[in-house]
Amino acid sequence: MKAASNNADYKFRVETCFLPGQYPLYAQDMGIVVVIDILRATSAMVTAFDCGVKSIIPVSTIEEARQYIGRPGYLAAAERNGEVVEGFPFGNSPLAFKQADLKGKTVVMTTTNGTKAINLARDARKLVIGSFLNITALTDWLVKQDDNILLLCSGWKDKFNLEDSVFAGAVMEKLLDSGKFGLEEDSSIAAKYLYQTAKENYLSILKAAPRRKRLEQLKLVDDVKFCLTPDQSTAIPELREGELVLMTP
Amino acid sequence: MKAASNNADYKFRVETCFLPGQYPLYAQDMGIVVVIDILRATSAMVTAFDCGVKSIIPVSTIEEARQYIGRPGYLAAAERNGEVVEGFPFGNSPLAFKQADLKGKTVVMTTTNGTKAINLARDARKLVIGSFLNITALTDWLVKQDDNILLLCSGWKDKFNLEDSVFAGAVMEKLLDSGKFGLEEDSSIAAKYLYQTAKENYLSILKAAPRRKRLEQLKLVDDVKFCLTPDQSTAIPELREGELVLMTP
Repeated sequence: MKAASNNADYKFRVETCFLPGQYPLYAQDMGIVVVIDILRATSAMVTAFDCGVKSIIPVSTIEEARQYIGRPGYLAAAERNGEVVEGFPFGNSPLAFKQADLKGKTVVMTTTNGTKAINLARDARKLVIGSFLNITALTDWLVKQDDNILLLCSGWKDKFNLEDSVFAGAVMEKLLDSGKFGLEEDSSIAAKYLYQTAKENYLSILKAAPRRKRLEQLKLVDDVKFCLTPDQSTAIPELREGELVLMTP
Repeated sequence: MKAASNNADYKFRVETCFLPGQYPLYAQDMGIVVVIDILRATSAMVTAFDCGVKSIIPVSTIEEARQYIGRPGYLAAAERNGEVVEGFPFGNSPLAFKQADLKGKTVVMTTTNGTKAINLARDARKLVIGSFLNITALTDWLVKQDDNILLLCSGWKDKFNLEDSVFAGAVMEKLLDSGKFGLEEDSSIAAKYLYQTAKENYLSILKAAPRRKRLEQLKLVDDVKFCLTPDQSTAIPELREGELVLMTP
Protein backbone atom coordinates (compact mmCIF):
# COMPACT_ATOMS: atom_id res chain seq x y z
CA MET A 1 0.00 0.00 0.00
CA LYS A 2 1.41 3.34 -1.06
CA ALA A 3 1.60 6.03 1.58
CA ALA A 4 -0.72 9.00 1.24
CA SER A 5 2.20 10.97 -0.06
CA ASN A 6 1.62 14.25 -1.75
CA ASN A 7 3.84 15.87 -4.32
CA ALA A 8 5.67 18.58 -2.45
CA ASP A 9 6.35 20.67 -5.56
CA TYR A 10 3.11 20.23 -7.45
CA LYS A 11 1.89 23.02 -9.68
CA PHE A 12 -1.80 22.17 -9.80
CA ARG A 13 -4.34 20.37 -7.69
CA VAL A 14 -6.48 17.36 -8.50
CA GLU A 15 -9.31 16.78 -6.04
CA THR A 16 -12.29 14.47 -5.63
CA CYS A 17 -15.75 15.64 -4.61
CA PHE A 18 -17.90 12.67 -3.57
CA LEU A 19 -21.30 14.29 -4.01
CA PRO A 20 -22.97 16.85 -6.28
CA GLY A 21 -24.37 18.61 -3.20
CA GLN A 22 -20.81 19.23 -2.02
CA TYR A 23 -19.73 20.83 -5.29
CA PRO A 24 -19.84 24.45 -4.02
CA LEU A 25 -17.43 23.51 -1.20
CA TYR A 26 -14.87 22.16 -3.68
CA ALA A 27 -15.37 24.30 -6.78
CA GLN A 28 -13.17 27.24 -5.84
CA ASP A 29 -10.11 27.63 -8.09
CA MET A 30 -11.06 24.55 -10.09
CA GLY A 31 -10.72 25.21 -13.82
CA ILE A 32 -11.62 21.76 -15.10
CA VAL A 33 -14.48 19.63 -13.79
CA VAL A 34 -14.75 15.95 -14.72
CA VAL A 35 -18.31 14.69 -14.21
CA ILE A 36 -18.48 11.01 -13.27
CA ASP A 37 -21.55 8.77 -13.25
CA ILE A 38 -20.16 5.33 -13.97
CA LEU A 39 -23.50 3.49 -13.61
CA ARG A 40 -24.52 4.63 -16.12
CA ALA A 41 -24.99 8.17 -17.42
CA THR A 42 -21.43 9.17 -18.28
CA SER A 43 -20.66 5.68 -19.62
CA ALA A 44 -23.72 6.00 -21.87
CA MET A 45 -22.64 9.47 -23.02
CA VAL A 46 -19.20 8.28 -24.10
CA THR A 47 -20.84 5.33 -25.89
CA ALA A 48 -23.29 7.64 -27.65
CA PHE A 49 -20.42 9.68 -29.12
CA ASP A 50 -18.77 6.48 -30.28
CA CYS A 51 -22.05 5.70 -32.03
CA GLY A 52 -21.86 9.01 -33.89
CA VAL A 53 -24.19 11.37 -32.05
CA LYS A 54 -23.64 15.04 -32.87
CA SER A 55 -24.36 16.30 -29.38
CA ILE A 56 -26.06 15.53 -26.07
CA ILE A 57 -28.21 18.03 -24.23
CA PRO A 58 -28.28 17.19 -20.51
CA VAL A 59 -31.50 18.35 -18.88
CA SER A 60 -32.58 18.15 -15.26
CA THR A 61 -36.25 17.23 -15.58
CA ILE A 62 -38.26 14.57 -17.33
CA GLU A 63 -40.60 17.26 -18.64
CA GLU A 64 -37.79 19.05 -20.49
CA ALA A 65 -36.69 15.79 -22.09
CA ARG A 66 -40.26 14.78 -22.98
CA GLN A 67 -40.62 17.72 -25.39
CA TYR A 68 -38.10 16.04 -27.69
CA ILE A 69 -39.86 12.66 -28.01
CA GLY A 70 -40.47 12.06 -31.71
CA ARG A 71 -38.87 15.34 -32.83
CA PRO A 72 -36.80 14.78 -36.03
CA GLY A 73 -33.06 14.74 -35.42
CA TYR A 74 -33.49 14.20 -31.67
CA LEU A 75 -33.54 11.22 -29.38
CA ALA A 76 -35.09 11.57 -25.95
CA ALA A 77 -33.57 9.56 -23.09
CA ALA A 78 -34.82 9.52 -19.51
CA GLU A 79 -33.87 7.35 -16.59
CA ARG A 80 -35.05 7.33 -12.98
CA ASN A 81 -34.18 4.69 -10.36
CA GLY A 82 -32.26 2.64 -12.90
CA GLU A 83 -35.22 2.23 -15.27
CA VAL A 84 -36.32 3.85 -18.54
CA VAL A 85 -39.02 6.42 -17.80
CA GLU A 86 -42.35 5.44 -19.35
CA GLY A 87 -42.90 6.86 -22.82
CA PHE A 88 -39.20 7.31 -23.57
CA PRO A 89 -37.32 5.24 -26.19
CA PHE A 90 -34.11 5.29 -24.11
CA GLY A 91 -32.89 5.48 -20.51
CA ASN A 92 -29.21 5.54 -19.63
CA SER A 93 -28.17 2.11 -20.91
CA PRO A 94 -24.98 2.30 -23.00
CA LEU A 95 -25.78 -1.07 -24.58
CA ALA A 96 -29.18 0.21 -25.72
CA PHE A 97 -27.39 3.19 -27.33
CA LYS A 98 -25.06 0.80 -29.10
CA GLN A 99 -27.98 -0.99 -30.69
CA ALA A 100 -29.63 2.20 -31.95
CA ASP A 101 -28.97 4.41 -34.95
CA LEU A 102 -27.64 7.56 -33.34
CA LYS A 103 -25.54 8.93 -36.19
CA GLY A 104 -25.76 12.70 -36.54
CA LYS A 105 -28.53 12.96 -33.95
CA THR A 106 -28.83 15.02 -30.80
CA VAL A 107 -29.67 13.09 -27.64
CA VAL A 108 -31.66 14.94 -24.97
CA MET A 109 -31.00 13.15 -21.73
CA THR A 110 -32.10 13.27 -18.10
CA THR A 111 -30.87 10.81 -15.47
CA THR A 112 -31.22 10.33 -11.72
CA ASN A 113 -27.75 11.58 -10.85
CA GLY A 114 -25.41 12.35 -13.75
CA THR A 115 -27.23 15.12 -15.61
CA LYS A 116 -27.86 16.81 -12.27
CA ALA A 117 -24.10 16.92 -11.59
CA ILE A 118 -23.46 18.32 -15.07
CA ASN A 119 -25.97 21.09 -14.57
CA LEU A 120 -24.53 21.99 -11.17
CA ALA A 121 -21.04 22.40 -12.64
CA ARG A 122 -22.04 23.94 -15.96
CA ASP A 123 -20.28 27.23 -15.22
CA ALA A 124 -16.86 25.60 -14.85
CA ARG A 125 -14.24 26.89 -17.28
CA LYS A 126 -14.19 23.43 -18.82
CA LEU A 127 -16.48 20.48 -18.09
CA VAL A 128 -15.67 17.03 -19.46
CA ILE A 129 -17.22 13.57 -19.11
CA GLY A 130 -15.38 10.68 -17.45
CA SER A 131 -16.02 6.93 -17.41
CA PHE A 132 -13.97 3.75 -17.38
CA LEU A 133 -14.66 3.53 -21.12
CA ASN A 134 -12.52 6.59 -21.90
CA ILE A 135 -10.28 6.62 -18.81
CA THR A 136 -6.89 6.49 -20.53
CA ALA A 137 -7.80 9.02 -23.23
CA LEU A 138 -9.20 11.29 -20.51
CA THR A 139 -6.23 11.03 -18.12
CA ASP A 140 -3.76 11.48 -20.99
CA TRP A 141 -5.58 14.71 -21.84
CA LEU A 142 -5.95 15.84 -18.22
CA VAL A 143 -2.27 15.41 -17.42
CA LYS A 144 -1.40 17.90 -20.17
CA GLN A 145 -3.67 20.62 -18.78
CA ASP A 146 -2.24 23.50 -16.79
CA ASP A 147 -5.14 23.91 -14.43
CA ASN A 148 -6.70 22.58 -11.23
CA ILE A 149 -8.95 19.58 -11.79
CA LEU A 150 -12.03 18.55 -9.83
CA LEU A 151 -13.36 15.02 -10.17
CA LEU A 152 -17.09 15.36 -9.45
CA CYS A 153 -18.84 12.12 -8.51
CA SER A 154 -22.56 12.02 -9.20
CA GLY A 155 -23.35 9.66 -6.33
CA TRP A 156 -26.65 7.83 -5.99
CA LYS A 157 -29.63 9.96 -5.01
CA ASP A 158 -27.41 12.44 -3.17
CA LYS A 159 -25.54 9.66 -1.38
CA PHE A 160 -21.92 8.54 -1.72
CA ASN A 161 -21.37 5.75 -4.22
CA LEU A 162 -18.50 3.37 -4.63
CA GLU A 163 -18.03 3.12 -8.40
CA ASP A 164 -17.74 6.86 -9.00
CA SER A 165 -15.29 7.21 -6.10
CA VAL A 166 -13.15 4.28 -7.22
CA PHE A 167 -13.00 5.76 -10.73
CA ALA A 168 -12.00 9.15 -9.30
CA GLY A 169 -9.24 7.41 -7.36
CA ALA A 170 -7.95 5.80 -10.55
CA VAL A 171 -7.71 9.18 -12.26
CA MET A 172 -6.13 10.73 -9.15
CA GLU A 173 -3.42 8.10 -9.01
CA LYS A 174 -2.43 8.71 -12.63
CA LEU A 175 -2.32 12.49 -12.22
CA LEU A 176 -0.46 12.36 -8.91
CA ASP A 177 2.10 9.98 -10.42
CA SER A 178 2.89 12.63 -13.03
CA GLY A 179 4.33 14.85 -10.29
CA LYS A 180 2.53 17.85 -11.77
CA PHE A 181 -0.53 17.54 -9.53
CA GLY A 182 -1.02 17.42 -5.78
CA LEU A 183 -4.02 17.18 -3.45
CA GLU A 184 -5.34 19.02 -0.41
CA GLU A 185 -8.60 17.31 0.46
CA ASP A 186 -9.27 14.27 2.64
CA SER A 187 -11.83 13.06 0.09
CA SER A 188 -9.06 12.95 -2.52
CA ILE A 189 -6.86 10.80 -0.28
CA ALA A 190 -9.81 8.50 0.43
CA ALA A 191 -10.60 8.12 -3.29
CA LYS A 192 -7.01 7.17 -3.97
CA TYR A 193 -7.08 4.54 -1.20
CA LEU A 194 -10.39 3.13 -2.39
CA TYR A 195 -8.97 2.72 -5.87
CA GLN A 196 -5.83 1.05 -4.54
CA THR A 197 -8.06 -1.39 -2.64
CA ALA A 198 -10.38 -2.02 -5.57
CA LYS A 199 -8.10 -1.97 -8.57
CA GLU A 200 -7.29 -5.66 -8.67
CA ASN A 201 -10.92 -6.51 -9.01
CA TYR A 202 -13.51 -3.79 -9.57
CA LEU A 203 -16.20 -6.20 -10.59
CA SER A 204 -16.25 -8.35 -7.47
CA ILE A 205 -16.00 -5.37 -5.13
CA LEU A 206 -18.69 -3.40 -6.86
CA LYS A 207 -20.91 -6.45 -7.27
CA ALA A 208 -20.76 -7.01 -3.51
CA ALA A 209 -22.49 -3.70 -2.92
CA PRO A 210 -26.19 -4.15 -2.20
CA ARG A 211 -27.17 -1.48 -4.72
CA ARG A 212 -25.49 -3.48 -7.47
CA LYS A 213 -27.64 -6.42 -6.49
CA ARG A 214 -30.56 -4.21 -7.32
CA LEU A 215 -29.05 -3.57 -10.75
CA GLU A 216 -28.80 -7.32 -11.18
CA GLN A 217 -32.46 -7.66 -10.36
CA LEU A 218 -33.10 -5.09 -13.08
CA LYS A 219 -31.20 -7.43 -15.44
CA LEU A 220 -28.44 -4.91 -15.97
CA VAL A 221 -25.49 -7.24 -15.43
CA ASP A 222 -24.25 -6.79 -19.00
CA ASP A 223 -24.57 -3.02 -18.74
CA VAL A 224 -22.61 -3.00 -15.47
CA LYS A 225 -19.81 -5.13 -16.90
CA PHE A 226 -19.65 -2.89 -19.97
CA CYS A 227 -19.48 0.27 -17.81
CA LEU A 228 -16.64 -1.16 -15.72
CA THR A 229 -14.48 -2.23 -18.67
CA PRO A 230 -11.79 0.37 -19.27
CA ASP A 231 -10.47 1.82 -22.52
CA GLN A 232 -13.19 1.00 -24.98
CA SER A 233 -13.20 4.55 -26.31
CA THR A 234 -11.02 7.60 -26.95
CA ALA A 235 -13.98 10.00 -26.98
CA ILE A 236 -13.88 12.92 -24.53
CA PRO A 237 -17.23 14.71 -24.42
CA GLU A 238 -17.06 18.34 -23.28
CA LEU A 239 -19.75 20.88 -22.50
CA ARG A 240 -20.03 23.81 -24.93
CA GLU A 241 -22.87 26.29 -24.60
CA GLY A 242 -25.06 23.83 -22.73
CA GLU A 243 -24.46 20.89 -25.09
CA LEU A 244 -22.01 18.04 -24.80
CA VAL A 245 -19.94 17.70 -27.96
CA LEU A 246 -16.94 15.62 -28.87
CA MET A 247 -13.68 17.33 -27.96
CA THR A 248 -11.53 17.80 -31.05
CA PRO A 249 -7.81 17.38 -30.39
CA MET B 1 -7.70 -7.52 1.63
CA LYS B 2 -11.04 -8.89 2.73
CA ALA B 3 -13.84 -8.93 0.18
CA ALA B 4 -16.74 -6.55 0.70
CA SER B 5 -18.72 -9.47 2.00
CA ASN B 6 -21.95 -8.87 3.77
CA ASN B 7 -23.58 -11.15 6.32
CA ALA B 8 -26.40 -12.86 4.49
CA ASP B 9 -28.42 -13.55 7.62
CA TYR B 10 -27.82 -10.39 9.58
CA LYS B 11 -30.50 -9.16 11.94
CA PHE B 12 -29.55 -5.51 12.17
CA ARG B 13 -27.74 -2.94 10.07
CA VAL B 14 -24.65 -0.91 10.85
CA GLU B 15 -24.07 1.98 8.46
CA THR B 16 -21.69 4.90 8.07
CA CYS B 17 -22.79 8.42 7.20
CA PHE B 18 -19.79 10.52 6.14
CA LEU B 19 -21.32 13.95 6.73
CA PRO B 20 -23.77 15.61 9.12
CA GLY B 21 -25.57 17.16 6.14
CA GLN B 22 -26.33 13.65 4.87
CA TYR B 23 -27.85 12.52 8.15
CA PRO B 24 -31.50 12.76 7.02
CA LEU B 25 -30.70 10.41 4.09
CA TYR B 26 -29.35 7.74 6.45
CA ALA B 27 -31.39 8.20 9.62
CA GLN B 28 -34.41 6.12 8.71
CA ASP B 29 -34.83 2.99 10.87
CA MET B 30 -31.66 3.79 12.82
CA GLY B 31 -32.21 3.37 16.54
CA ILE B 32 -28.70 4.13 17.75
CA VAL B 33 -26.54 6.96 16.46
CA VAL B 34 -22.82 7.11 17.28
CA VAL B 35 -21.49 10.65 16.82
CA ILE B 36 -17.83 10.76 15.79
CA ASP B 37 -15.51 13.76 15.78
CA ILE B 38 -12.09 12.26 16.37
CA LEU B 39 -10.18 15.55 16.06
CA ARG B 40 -11.19 16.55 18.62
CA ALA B 41 -14.69 17.04 20.04
CA THR B 42 -15.75 13.48 20.82
CA SER B 43 -12.26 12.57 22.04
CA ALA B 44 -12.42 15.57 24.38
CA MET B 45 -15.88 14.55 25.61
CA VAL B 46 -14.75 11.05 26.55
CA THR B 47 -11.71 12.55 28.29
CA ALA B 48 -13.89 15.00 30.18
CA PHE B 49 -15.96 12.16 31.64
CA ASP B 50 -12.77 10.38 32.65
CA CYS B 51 -11.85 13.58 34.48
CA GLY B 52 -15.10 13.41 36.43
CA VAL B 53 -17.45 15.88 34.74
CA LYS B 54 -21.09 15.40 35.67
CA SER B 55 -22.46 16.26 32.24
CA ILE B 56 -21.73 18.03 28.96
CA ILE B 57 -24.25 20.31 27.28
CA PRO B 58 -23.52 20.47 23.55
CA VAL B 59 -24.63 23.77 22.05
CA SER B 60 -24.51 24.97 18.45
CA THR B 61 -23.49 28.59 18.86
CA ILE B 62 -20.72 30.49 20.60
CA GLU B 63 -23.30 32.85 22.07
CA GLU B 64 -25.11 30.03 23.88
CA ALA B 65 -21.83 28.80 25.34
CA ARG B 66 -20.69 32.29 26.32
CA GLN B 67 -23.54 32.66 28.83
CA TYR B 68 -21.86 30.03 30.98
CA ILE B 69 -18.43 31.67 31.25
CA GLY B 70 -17.69 32.14 34.94
CA ARG B 71 -20.96 30.62 36.11
CA PRO B 72 -20.37 28.42 39.22
CA GLY B 73 -20.45 24.69 38.50
CA TYR B 74 -20.04 25.24 34.75
CA LEU B 75 -17.11 25.28 32.35
CA ALA B 76 -17.55 26.95 28.98
CA ALA B 77 -15.67 25.48 26.03
CA ALA B 78 -15.71 26.83 22.49
CA GLU B 79 -13.65 25.90 19.45
CA ARG B 80 -13.72 27.22 15.91
CA ASN B 81 -11.20 26.37 13.18
CA GLY B 82 -9.09 24.33 15.58
CA GLU B 83 -8.54 27.19 18.03
CA VAL B 84 -10.03 28.21 21.37
CA VAL B 85 -12.55 31.01 20.82
CA GLU B 86 -11.40 34.26 22.43
CA GLY B 87 -12.70 34.74 25.96
CA PHE B 88 -13.24 31.02 26.62
CA PRO B 89 -11.15 29.01 29.10
CA PHE B 90 -11.35 25.85 26.91
CA GLY B 91 -11.68 24.77 23.30
CA ASN B 92 -11.87 21.12 22.31
CA SER B 93 -8.44 19.94 23.43
CA PRO B 94 -8.66 16.71 25.43
CA LEU B 95 -5.21 17.36 26.94
CA ALA B 96 -6.36 20.75 28.22
CA PHE B 97 -9.33 19.01 29.86
CA LYS B 98 -6.95 16.55 31.48
CA GLN B 99 -5.03 19.36 33.11
CA ALA B 100 -8.14 21.06 34.52
CA ASP B 101 -10.27 20.37 37.57
CA LEU B 102 -13.50 19.16 36.02
CA LYS B 103 -14.82 17.01 38.85
CA GLY B 104 -18.59 17.32 39.29
CA LYS B 105 -18.85 20.18 36.83
CA THR B 106 -21.00 20.63 33.75
CA VAL B 107 -19.16 21.53 30.56
CA VAL B 108 -21.04 23.63 28.01
CA MET B 109 -19.38 23.04 24.68
CA THR B 110 -19.58 24.26 21.11
CA THR B 111 -17.23 23.05 18.37
CA THR B 112 -16.85 23.51 14.61
CA ASN B 113 -18.22 20.10 13.68
CA GLY B 114 -18.98 17.70 16.52
CA THR B 115 -21.62 19.52 18.52
CA LYS B 116 -23.40 20.30 15.25
CA ALA B 117 -23.63 16.58 14.47
CA ILE B 118 -24.94 15.86 17.97
CA ASN B 119 -27.65 18.46 17.64
CA LEU B 120 -28.70 17.15 14.22
CA ALA B 121 -29.16 13.64 15.60
CA ARG B 122 -30.56 14.56 19.00
CA ASP B 123 -33.93 12.91 18.29
CA ALA B 124 -32.39 9.47 17.78
CA ARG B 125 -33.70 6.82 20.15
CA LYS B 126 -30.19 6.62 21.59
CA LEU B 127 -27.19 8.85 20.85
CA VAL B 128 -23.72 7.90 22.08
CA ILE B 129 -20.24 9.36 21.65
CA GLY B 130 -17.46 7.51 19.85
CA SER B 131 -13.70 8.05 19.71
CA PHE B 132 -10.57 5.93 19.51
CA LEU B 133 -10.23 6.48 23.27
CA ASN B 134 -13.31 4.41 24.08
CA ILE B 135 -13.51 2.25 20.92
CA THR B 136 -13.40 -1.18 22.55
CA ALA B 137 -15.83 -0.29 25.34
CA LEU B 138 -18.13 1.25 22.74
CA THR B 139 -18.04 -1.65 20.25
CA ASP B 140 -18.47 -4.19 23.07
CA TRP B 141 -21.61 -2.32 24.06
CA LEU B 142 -22.85 -1.81 20.49
CA VAL B 143 -22.54 -5.46 19.57
CA LYS B 144 -24.96 -6.36 22.37
CA GLN B 145 -27.65 -3.98 21.15
CA ASP B 146 -30.65 -5.26 19.20
CA ASP B 147 -31.06 -2.27 16.93
CA ASN B 148 -29.78 -0.64 13.76
CA ILE B 149 -26.71 1.51 14.28
CA LEU B 150 -25.66 4.62 12.39
CA LEU B 151 -22.07 5.85 12.66
CA LEU B 152 -22.33 9.59 12.07
CA CYS B 153 -19.08 11.30 11.09
CA SER B 154 -18.86 14.99 11.88
CA GLY B 155 -16.56 15.80 8.96
CA TRP B 156 -14.66 19.06 8.65
CA LYS B 157 -16.73 22.13 7.85
CA ASP B 158 -19.32 20.04 6.02
CA LYS B 159 -16.65 18.16 4.08
CA PHE B 160 -15.63 14.50 4.28
CA ASN B 161 -12.78 13.79 6.66
CA LEU B 162 -10.47 10.84 6.92
CA GLU B 163 -10.10 10.24 10.66
CA ASP B 164 -13.84 10.03 11.37
CA SER B 165 -14.34 7.69 8.40
CA VAL B 166 -11.44 5.43 9.36
CA PHE B 167 -12.81 5.21 12.90
CA ALA B 168 -16.28 4.35 11.55
CA GLY B 169 -14.66 1.62 9.47
CA ALA B 170 -12.99 0.18 12.55
CA VAL B 171 -16.33 -0.03 14.37
CA MET B 172 -18.03 -1.47 11.28
CA GLU B 173 -15.46 -4.24 10.97
CA LYS B 174 -15.98 -5.33 14.56
CA LEU B 175 -19.77 -5.32 14.29
CA LEU B 176 -19.80 -7.08 10.91
CA ASP B 177 -17.46 -9.75 12.25
CA SER B 178 -20.04 -10.55 14.95
CA GLY B 179 -22.38 -11.85 12.24
CA LYS B 180 -25.28 -10.02 13.86
CA PHE B 181 -24.96 -6.90 11.71
CA GLY B 182 -24.94 -6.29 7.97
CA LEU B 183 -24.69 -3.23 5.74
CA GLU B 184 -26.58 -1.77 2.79
CA GLU B 185 -24.81 1.49 1.98
CA ASP B 186 -21.83 2.15 -0.29
CA SER B 187 -20.46 4.58 2.29
CA SER B 188 -20.36 1.73 4.81
CA ILE B 189 -18.34 -0.45 2.44
CA ALA B 190 -15.98 2.46 1.75
CA ALA B 191 -15.47 3.11 5.46
CA LYS B 192 -14.59 -0.52 6.02
CA TYR B 193 -12.05 -0.43 3.17
CA LEU B 194 -10.52 2.81 4.42
CA TYR B 195 -10.03 1.27 7.83
CA GLN B 196 -8.49 -1.87 6.35
CA THR B 197 -6.05 0.34 4.45
CA ALA B 198 -5.27 2.56 7.42
CA LYS B 199 -5.29 0.18 10.35
CA GLU B 200 -1.63 -0.73 10.31
CA ASN B 201 -0.67 2.86 10.73
CA TYR B 202 -3.27 5.49 11.47
CA LEU B 203 -0.78 8.08 12.50
CA SER B 204 1.27 8.19 9.32
CA ILE B 205 -1.78 8.10 7.07
CA LEU B 206 -3.62 10.78 8.95
CA LYS B 207 -0.52 12.90 9.33
CA ALA B 208 -0.06 12.87 5.55
CA ALA B 209 -3.36 14.69 5.10
CA PRO B 210 -2.83 18.40 4.48
CA ARG B 211 -5.39 19.37 7.13
CA ARG B 212 -3.35 17.55 9.76
CA LYS B 213 -0.40 19.65 8.75
CA ARG B 214 -2.49 22.60 9.73
CA LEU B 215 -3.06 21.01 13.14
CA GLU B 216 0.71 20.64 13.44
CA GLN B 217 1.10 24.33 12.73
CA LEU B 218 -1.35 24.95 15.54
CA LYS B 219 1.00 22.91 17.77
CA LEU B 220 -1.58 20.20 18.28
CA VAL B 221 0.66 17.21 17.58
CA ASP B 222 0.29 15.87 21.12
CA ASP B 223 -3.48 16.29 20.99
CA VAL B 224 -3.65 14.44 17.66
CA LYS B 225 -1.56 11.54 18.94
CA PHE B 226 -3.71 11.34 22.06
CA CYS B 227 -6.92 11.32 20.01
CA LEU B 228 -5.65 8.51 17.78
CA THR B 229 -4.54 6.24 20.62
CA PRO B 230 -7.21 3.59 21.24
CA ASP B 231 -8.59 2.21 24.49
CA GLN B 232 -7.62 4.83 27.02
CA SER B 233 -11.13 4.89 28.44
CA THR B 234 -14.20 2.77 29.11
CA ALA B 235 -16.52 5.78 29.31
CA ILE B 236 -19.51 5.84 26.94
CA PRO B 237 -21.23 9.24 27.01
CA GLU B 238 -24.88 9.21 25.98
CA LEU B 239 -27.38 11.99 25.38
CA ARG B 240 -30.22 12.27 27.90
CA GLU B 241 -32.63 15.17 27.73
CA GLY B 242 -30.18 17.36 25.86
CA GLU B 243 -27.19 16.61 28.09
CA LEU B 244 -24.41 14.10 27.66
CA VAL B 245 -24.02 11.91 30.71
CA LEU B 246 -22.00 8.83 31.47
CA MET B 247 -23.84 5.65 30.52
CA THR B 248 -24.28 3.39 33.52
CA PRO B 249 -23.94 -0.30 32.75
